[in-house]
Amino acid sequence: MPTLDTAFSALSDPTRRAILARLALGEATVLELGKPFKMTQPAISQHIKVLQGAGLIVRRVDGTRRPCSLSKPGFEAMDQWLAMLREAFEKNYDRLDHVLAGMKLENGEKRDE
Amino acid sequence: MPTLDTAFSALSDPTRRAILARLALGEATVLELGKPFKMTQPAISQHIKVLQGAGLIVRRVDGTRRPCSLSKPGFEAMDQWLAMLREAFEKNYDRLDHVLAGMKLENGEKRDE
Repeated sequence: MPTLDTAFSALSDPTRRAILARLALGEATVLELGKPFKMTQPAISQHIKVLQGAGLIVRRVDGTRRPCSLSKPGFEAMDQWLAMLREAFEKNYDRLDHVLAGMKLENGEKRDE
Repeated sequence: MPTLDTAFSALSDPTRRAILARLALGEATVLELGKPFKMTQPAISQHIKVLQGAGLIVRRVDGTRRPCSLSKPGFEAMDQWLAMLREAFEKNYDRLDHVLAGMKLENGEKRDE
């Protein structure tokens, strides 16, 4: 089962990130995905397997083709986790804004300056 | 130097994600960070080192204390990379909306239904 462990681990490799970036433009076959890389087909297939196992891509059957595309649920799980950190930074900045506004008032400056 | 490789790799461990989640609430010392885990102090310190090396946390000197806190630049690098995937999903949904709207019109239904 895909987990945050396998999802983040899958993203730690530049080739796998490049594959996902290509898929962001639309679905593609393993052959198409392999073209930009100086890599054997089995090596690319292995990366695809890791991304599938991590729940980041899915493949569909289209006659003899099996095109890959991005999988939203795997991505959303990571994005939700990172949203927690994003909110923490935003809260810290809000606090800093209040502190700075308070400092300005203490110095007798106007709040709008 | 921190890279996306080391940043995503650092997030693939549940203890390290728990440490970051704790730091999202505010800065903490290594001793404080270790409390919720059944782990030796050196094991926690090793996780902290990985997070520091990945550019995800920073430490400051406060007398004899060296509290850790989240580092915004390391987080932003990952967030920007993931934003590229986020936009791809949004575009796909927009395209799907248009397709569905077109199908409804073809079926003689009103667009607002």
